[in-house]
Amino acid sequence: MKDKFFTYIQNLQDTITSKLEEVDGKARFKEDVWKRPEGGGGRTRVIENGNVFEKGGVNISGVHGELPKSMQTYFDVADADFFACGLSLVLHPKNPMVPTVHANWRYFEIYNKQGELVDQWFGGGQDLTPYYLFEEDAVHFHSICKKACDKHNPEFYSKYKKRCDDYFWNTHRNEARGIGGLFFDYCKASEKMKMNDWYNFVSEVGDNFLSSYIPIVTKRKDAEFTKLQREWQEIRRGRYVEFNLVHDKGTLFGLKTNGRIESILMSLPPHVQWRYDHQPSSGSEEAKLLEVLKHPKEWV
Amino acid sequence: MKDKFFTYIQNLQDTITSKLEEVDGKARFKEDVWKRPEGGGGRTRVIENGNVFEKGGVNISGVHGELPKSMQTYFDVADADFFACGLSLVLHPKNPMVPTVHANWRYFEIYNKQGELVDQWFGGGQDLTPYYLFEEDAVHFHSICKKACDKHNPEFYSKYKKRCDDYFWNTHRNEARGIGGLFFDYCKASEKMKMNDWYNFVSEVGDNFLSSYIPIVTKRKDAEFTKLQREWQEIRRGRYVEFNLVHDKGTLFGLKTNGRIESILMSLPPHVQWRYDHQPSSGSEEAKLLEVLKHPKEWV
Repeated sequence: MKDKFFTYIQNLQDTITSKLEEVDGKARFKEDVWKRPEGGGGRTRVIENGNVFEKGGVNISGVHGELPKSMQTYFDVADADFFACGLSLVLHPKNPMVPTVHANWRYFEIYNKQGELVDQWFGGGQDLTPYYLFEEDAVHFHSICKKACDKHNPEFYSKYKKRCDDYFWNTHRNEARGIGGLFFDYCKASEKMKMNDWYNFVSEVGDNFLSSYIPIVTKRKDAEFTKLQREWQEIRRGRYVEFNLVHDKGTLFGLKTNGRIESILMSLPPHVQWRYDHQPSSGSEEAKLLEVLKHPKEWV
Repeated sequence: MKDKFFTYIQNLQDTITSKLEEVDGKARFKEDVWKRPEGGGGRTRVIENGNVFEKGGVNISGVHGELPKSMQTYFDVADADFFACGLSLVLHPKNPMVPTVHANWRYFEIYNKQGELVDQWFGGGQDLTPYYLFEEDAVHFHSICKKACDKHNPEFYSKYKKRCDDYFWNTHRNEARGIGGLFFDYCKASEKMKMNDWYNFVSEVGDNFLSSYIPIVTKRKDAEFTKLQREWQEIRRGRYVEFNLVHDKGTLFGLKTNGRIESILMSLPPHVQWRYDHQPSSGSEEAKLLEVLKHPKEWV
């Protein structure tokens, strides 16, 4: 399974980066291949200063070795070895009418000291962070998520949509980071879902990523915007930074376990603003977005 | 003591904000007085878009009531009441040749459920975060810190300077946030230092703040700078954000105990950039700064 999924995300990285370069039409991904001293490594691909994408990364990694102490505590296991691989992407478009998107699909294996596989699971998801709310875009993104889920289990979409709303909640601001999508974790073999069924589910979601996001980009990338709208985007990006640095388990985990910093923090937006006590005027488009972030809704 | 120190920081806030407005020459502090539902409140003063100060806050608060559960765990005490007051300031100048400065001086009391005072201490410090290194500025700032310390104990400066270097260490970047200053905490009554001696020490440090910082501002505020130097400042401000959101105990504590968010996050810089794997060219002024941040040095 680990070879199968690692091959899958390698190919998916190629598919996604090619398509994004085509849509951008100007910038190319810069690739950094890195090695982890304790075992494994990754292939980071970053795009900057494009026509469409101001900054973004589509990274894969496959790491293995002794499970670090901090992860032993986190997973509540004794001395063990592990293998983990995944694809993580974040795209920050230039135009404030185009939403930021994040996705991550990952697979984990744990072995005892005799080298026997003792646990394995999939995790992942994807979510959208608009700066201006176009209901049809939200409906489109969630519809694709739902369609991919429904093929595997009619209950997955509503369950993983709710988990996504719960996870990407900026508690100190009492608002969501964005308008959600899917979030699933610890997807382990059961009567109903063998590991291969989970593989099929996760790869279905991964395969549908481009069709969930690209039509929105294509529709909005040339929209006109004002200086004030751009400022609003930069201020909202501040909330994105706050979530990632204060609450996001993946980011903090990486920072505290000596992960490759530049690959982890590629998720941070390029230009960001913080103003004191900034409030949009009531009835504005900006206020309309906040309303939805404070009260996550059902899009499909 | 609590009334004495609270009066002290109220006056100090006035002194500092008046002087900063005078130096800025354009922007004025905007004041927000707020109440904490559980007891006490604060007076937040924020300056934005000045000639000199792009964003900054000089805030005081005095809060009291039942010690929140999270603080009980933190201080390792049972059910108790508390009083805490302090002044916190952060100034982000526009000109990249002028360093950012942070300071905080605080006083804490703990009472048992019979209302008896069971513990009390002072804490605080101040530190400088330059974007370009002028050795004479670093020496000036540290000299004033040392002079204030030396009047009370010849060992304080080297002890609190080291604690400051340790505390403001951005572990995930393996570099200091800035060039340090002073950091002290849990300053409790002893044979040598009664509470009133600590009051005298902390107020000495507070009284010397303006003379540690303002001469540097005056000397550098009209320096010419390039677009690239401004970009470097914005990139380095990103490290400031990373420290405050990932490592700073005061910030995280505030965010996780339902503090007044806008007063806590006024510390974040106004315009910030993150670029992928940005490295200054070797031998440059930017590289010279990094060298000092990676290897904190003795300035006096």
